[in-house]
Amino acid sequence: AVVAAASAASWFASCAADSPYMGEALSSDLQARLSDPADMQAHMEDMILRVQKEVCDALSAADGGAQFQVDRWERDAGGGGVSCVLQDSEVFEKAGVNCSVVHGNLSPAAIKEMTARGHEFGPGPYHFFACGISSVIHPRNPLNPTMHFNYRYFEVTASNGKKTFWFGGGADLTPSYLFEEDAEHFHRSWQETCDKHDPTYYPRFKKWCDDYFYIAHRGERRGVGGVFFDDLNDKSPRELFTFVRDMARTIVPAYLPIIERRKNMPFTEEQRKWQLLRRGRYVEFNLVYDRGTKFGLFTPGSRIESIFVSMPLNARWEYSHSPEPGSPEEELLKVLQEPREWV
Amino acid sequence: AVVAAASAASWFASCAADSPYMGEALSSDLQARLSDPADMQAHMEDMILRVQKEVCDALSAADGGAQFQVDRWERDAGGGGVSCVLQDSEVFEKAGVNCSVVHGNLSPAAIKEMTARGHEFGPGPYHFFACGISSVIHPRNPLNPTMHFNYRYFEVTASNGKKTFWFGGGADLTPSYLFEEDAEHFHRSWQETCDKHDPTYYPRFKKWCDDYFYIAHRGERRGVGGVFFDDLNDKSPRELFTFVRDMARTIVPAYLPIIERRKNMPFTEEQRKWQLLRRGRYVEFNLVYDRGTKFGLFTPGSRIESIFVSMPLNARWEYSHSPEPGSPEEELLKVLQEPREWV
Repeated sequence: AVVAAASAASWFASCAADSPYMGEALSSDLQARLSDPADMQAHMEDMILRVQKEVCDALSAADGGAQFQVDRWERDAGGGGVSCVLQDSEVFEKAGVNCSVVHGNLSPAAIKEMTARGHEFGPGPYHFFACGISSVIHPRNPLNPTMHFNYRYFEVTASNGKKTFWFGGGADLTPSYLFEEDAEHFHRSWQETCDKHDPTYYPRFKKWCDDYFYIAHRGERRGVGGVFFDDLNDKSPRELFTFVRDMARTIVPAYLPIIERRKNMPFTEEQRKWQLLRRGRYVEFNLVYDRGTKFGLFTPGSRIESIFVSMPLNARWEYSHSPEPGSPEEELLKVLQEPREWV
Repeated sequence: AVVAAASAASWFASCAADSPYMGEALSSDLQARLSDPADMQAHMEDMILRVQKEVCDALSAADGGAQFQVDRWERDAGGGGVSCVLQDSEVFEKAGVNCSVVHGNLSPAAIKEMTARGHEFGPGPYHFFACGISSVIHPRNPLNPTMHFNYRYFEVTASNGKKTFWFGGGADLTPSYLFEEDAEHFHRSWQETCDKHDPTYYPRFKKWCDDYFYIAHRGERRGVGGVFFDDLNDKSPRELFTFVRDMARTIVPAYLPIIERRKNMPFTEEQRKWQLLRRGRYVEFNLVYDRGTKFGLFTPGSRIESIFVSMPLNARWEYSHSPEPGSPEEELLKVLQEPREWV
């Protein structure tokens, strides 16, 4: 395995076939630190890198063994990441799975945003640690849905040593055509994992997801939802880590059966066009509303290419397009305008 | 000619062939009011509707007589517009030319934004009048540049009758491939019109354009620029109206010769792909930075379809794409990173 140490360029840097990771860990002392069960930073880094490999392997297998491009990058201000991208392949038009582990000084804008959300940090200046996995998968077949997931851990340390932490994440499904059994399977998968940890989680996080992925200027949700949560620190770090790890391990069983079911279904040019219009809406959400994307764009030193892995390979905007009454396209719009309960 | 009076639907509403407008005027008493030379609202409405017809006629002629779809719409809160769109035609992949004449009560957010820019309105509440023409033209041939223009007039009336006004506008060129003679012709056209009115205008407005159309997260301008100005009220309304009218009449001679020069040039699939990547950047600018787009998206009662006429029919995002050193694609990037003087 080759490890790139440049912040501007990024080089092919995948691990050996028997490694549990796609690219080498960001922390060179990671393996040693894992023996301390209280080292949450190390356990999160290890977890997201393992999930990255698990997801990429599953996507590769579904796509006839297609190989991900692996880029390992470092951040001037501290930390770095591993970006895995599959582009213009047979089953997946674009699939990106990014891990990042970054740290440094918290900017005044970030402090303002976080305290507005209710966090109390103690006296500044503040040091932060952020570690997460984030992914958007755009299949080629218009009958197959786009999926996004993200799991992350955040830590802020005040000048007196006081530490504040929280977890965030979620996963949501964006079909161009509605298959109720797909939406049901996806939601049921998240519900089952949530219920093992806290019976209040799924209903709260399902609603949070519907509220968050809302394209206000269209009066539409981005998709049929899933789960979304942020600022989660209502249990011990260990308990919440176990929850987030179990959620991250739910990605493959929640999504891959849908991919397998739809990937070889025949589709028409008209269905492909509708998919491209829906991809346009995806772009609208990400650039106008998505907190993560905007945070990345306005943070100096971000790796823009990793942020924009979420963008579809192709998108389309037609003037005044509206689907035929009673068509499958209109059926989708209705469910985006009025979210349903799926489980 | 049919005039639609619905705010939700919009109907085909083009004027008779001998009309100076594409769609019927928004003000039913417009012709009578034009006899008063001081009625700036009427003269602006007449001017933008005439320019809309002039531009659409010129684009139609360049595109083998292709016909624009004409939609006339009304706004619940006051006023309306005429949107003309040509989509998926031979020379133009998407061309939209919108006029709008709207009025009503100024929202607190708009007041805050405008006073932050230096306007002093006197005591509120305020009534506003806004009237403008706005257009984005995306040709199909990758050797032909996209062009955007916008000319507008704004009036705010305080509760004591005090009236504040300003003009704004500009035009800018976004090529996928750089032809220096095109950029020079475009800039020289604006310089000549500006110089007839004020020798300080072109240099100021050229720089303002380079500064405004900046995609910060890419470190690139959107294109090779042109002119941009806002809050212009340093002369009498009549003098500024004459300036803005002359600018609006410069659109056809500034842009159409370029279209004619390039529209039949052969191009490759690779050039088409590069054009689609550049269209992706256009989308990024419009959704992340453009003040007009964001103002529209967050204003209740806006006609979203008219705002999004600016979006390209097709756009593309490839992961980590970078052009070959020394290629024409890299030559374009260089000029977007370091704006030049063209006249």
